[in-house]
Amino acid sequence: KRIAVLPGDGIGREVMDGAVRVLKAVSDCFGHDFKYTEGLIGGAAIDAAGTPLPKATLDVCKESDAILLGAVGGPKWADVSPNIRPEKGLLAIRKALGLFANLRPVTAYSQLINASPLKKEIIENVDLLIVRELTGGIYFGEPSERRGKNKEIAVDTLLYDKEEVHRIVEKAFQFAQARSKKLTSVDKANVLESSRMWREVVDAVSAGYPDVKVEHMLVDSAAMKLIQSPEDFDVIVTENMFGDILSDEASIIAGSLGMLPSASLRSDNVGLYEPVHGSAPDIAGENKANPLAMMLSAAMMLRHSFQMEKEALAVENAVSAVLNEGCHTADLNIPSGHCVGTDEMIQKVVEHIN
Amino acid sequence: KRIAVLPGDGIGREVMDGAVRVLKAVSDCFGHDFKYTEGLIGGAAIDAAGTPLPKATLDVCKESDAILLGAVGGPKWADVSPNIRPEKGLLAIRKALGLFANLRPVTAYSQLINASPLKKEIIENVDLLIVRELTGGIYFGEPSERRGKNKEIAVDTLLYDKEEVHRIVEKAFQFAQARSKKLTSVDKANVLESSRMWREVVDAVSAGYPDVKVEHMLVDSAAMKLIQSPEDFDVIVTENMFGDILSDEASIIAGSLGMLPSASLRSDNVGLYEPVHGSAPDIAGENKANPLAMMLSAAMMLRHSFQMEKEALAVENAVSAVLNEGCHTADLNIPSGHCVGTDEMIQKVVEHIN
Ligand SMILES: CC(C)[C@H](C(=O)O)[C@@H](O)C(=O)O
Ligand SMILES: CC(C)[C@H](C(=O)O)[C@@H](O)C(=O)O
Repeated sequence: KRIAVLPGDGIGREVMDGAVRVLKAVSDCFGHDFKYTEGLIGGAAIDAAGTPLPKATLDVCKESDAILLGAVGGPKWADVSPNIRPEKGLLAIRKALGLFANLRPVTAYSQLINASPLKKEIIENVDLLIVRELTGGIYFGEPSERRGKNKEIAVDTLLYDKEEVHRIVEKAFQFAQARSKKLTSVDKANVLESSRMWREVVDAVSAGYPDVKVEHMLVDSAAMKLIQSPEDFDVIVTENMFGDILSDEASIIAGSLGMLPSASLRSDNVGLYEPVHGSAPDIAGENKANPLAMMLSAAMMLRHSFQMEKEALAVENAVSAVLNEGCHTADLNIPSGHCVGTDEMIQKVVEHIN
Repeated sequence: KRIAVLPGDGIGREVMDGAVRVLKAVSDCFGHDFKYTEGLIGGAAIDAAGTPLPKATLDVCKESDAILLGAVGGPKWADVSPNIRPEKGLLAIRKALGLFANLRPVTAYSQLINASPLKKEIIENVDLLIVRELTGGIYFGEPSERRGKNKEIAVDTLLYDKEEVHRIVEKAFQFAQARSKKLTSVDKANVLESSRMWREVVDAVSAGYPDVKVEHMLVDSAAMKLIQSPEDFDVIVTENMFGDILSDEASIIAGSLGMLPSASLRSDNVGLYEPVHGSAPDIAGENKANPLAMMLSAAMMLRHSFQMEKEALAVENAVSAVLNEGCHTADLNIPSGHCVGTDEMIQKVVEHIN
């Protein structure tokens, strides 16, 4: 199996170290042979090659079975032109590889329950999956431009074609089918034309999954209910921007963004795996970053791109074991725990792989 | 002072009763003369006149100093064509009257602190104001349509001109100036052209308010931080859709959407006042609705359109007094309190006006 490794910027390199080390432990333990190739992306690529996604990086990714990505961006590149910003590298790779299905699972670890601002009884049984459309919508619609004599008008375009909606909704139904058979589709159909089409597609696809219970929810209401009664949700499917907002919001349940992994898939199981968090330039290089989101993303890679369920569980169980020992990084506010650095956290998880 | 009264649908009429009764108590007590004119809007208007905002209603509003609005919509009108949906009445009146500045204050009432899913220490000092742009953005941008041979493409347009952004940002700075001198501007500048223009305008306007501390925050991050550390916010300014999502989300802090009032203003102080909640058809007519958001909206009217600060405070203090007595409606989950119906709640608040 060939794995492209794109550490990116800020804490990206530190957390990527966690993913690579835990994967090495997994391959030793289970007898696999993974081949790693590094590539530049984001600010690091702008510095080295003048563009956030160099062709060499894209080529490496295209020849790989899966891609691990750390994080991109930082104040250092705040003033580069919008078209070569670090984030463009991330958006471009998602689009170029057609990774339309972004999976963002949210689990309330019992060991971290006190780190959440939410009351224990609200979150203790939460285990939900956000399925976010990732290559369409207002992120990629054209025109997206300034207009007028003095550039005094700005326009962005939210565009979906039915096929794009269909494939992500179909994926979400498959996950719902395999889980609790409950799907919440989030839109803003009382305002947006694209949301009304989204609803049509959900209703049409739902005919093929008679045992999955479907609910339509407006995004404003969903933003409230996700915090008020998160246990009511199982699989959530939504368009690109709404998914971006709701998944960051849902990190509240897990206690920290530093716990949330993600997978971005296309139909043939090639996938990109990255933490939901960003490059956190304020703590970069300080051995403070939480590597678990990146390590759990590697577990998702084992599961979704390599069909190695046993190995994925080994990583997830190792994380759980370390949390059971009371260890956590500084992003998690747990008075009673034992606060460790990035490196020690990685080491501890690696030791639990068996 | 002339007040247009638009009860709308569902619980709209029940909660409107609260606003009108408390205003009558205020005018008796303080010696004012308010003139009320009723108008149809939303589903009620569709049933009576075939359109969600009849010309007669708009005329009444145009001749008034302020408008009170209950709520619109419900499953009864789910199948009408998109252009005459109940919500269109609300959007059309906002646009026709140019009510661009939507104020949504969020207060954590100490009496309700246990009703929130959030821990007490997270919310106990929260008192924030969301300033939402209300007549632009993706709600009103053209084109918003279906395209293609089989209508297989859906498009919505997020459009702002600088002047629209300028006037709402200016308003927000004025509020920030008068409050804690702290302003958070929320956008998605790493993806949207309109957000990059928004940031430019905020930075330009900020030069005129050197003592106001300004922070730019991405909407995904804001959705998280609003729950994680709501006390860090004072005034939040954002575009139409982001404001819609964040203000519903913020209701978590107050314990219920039933506590959140809103004002929609233009520059001459004419305003429309409505609760943030919807028409709640599931409990309509059951004497269960929380009338406080509507009554607090009437208080905002006294303050913002009539410059009657004393009178506004009288309403707000009356609400607080009733909460102090342990009374609340069924939307608030407070085991120790005394749960009352809509009518009794209204009566109690009215009795406290003095
Ligand atoms: C960095 C940014 C462009 C990106 C997004 O909005 O998709 C990030 O927030 C994410 O959620 O992966
Ligand atoms: C009813 C709907 C169109 C409206 C909006 O999205 O503005 C509502 O959610 C609100 O917040 O006032």
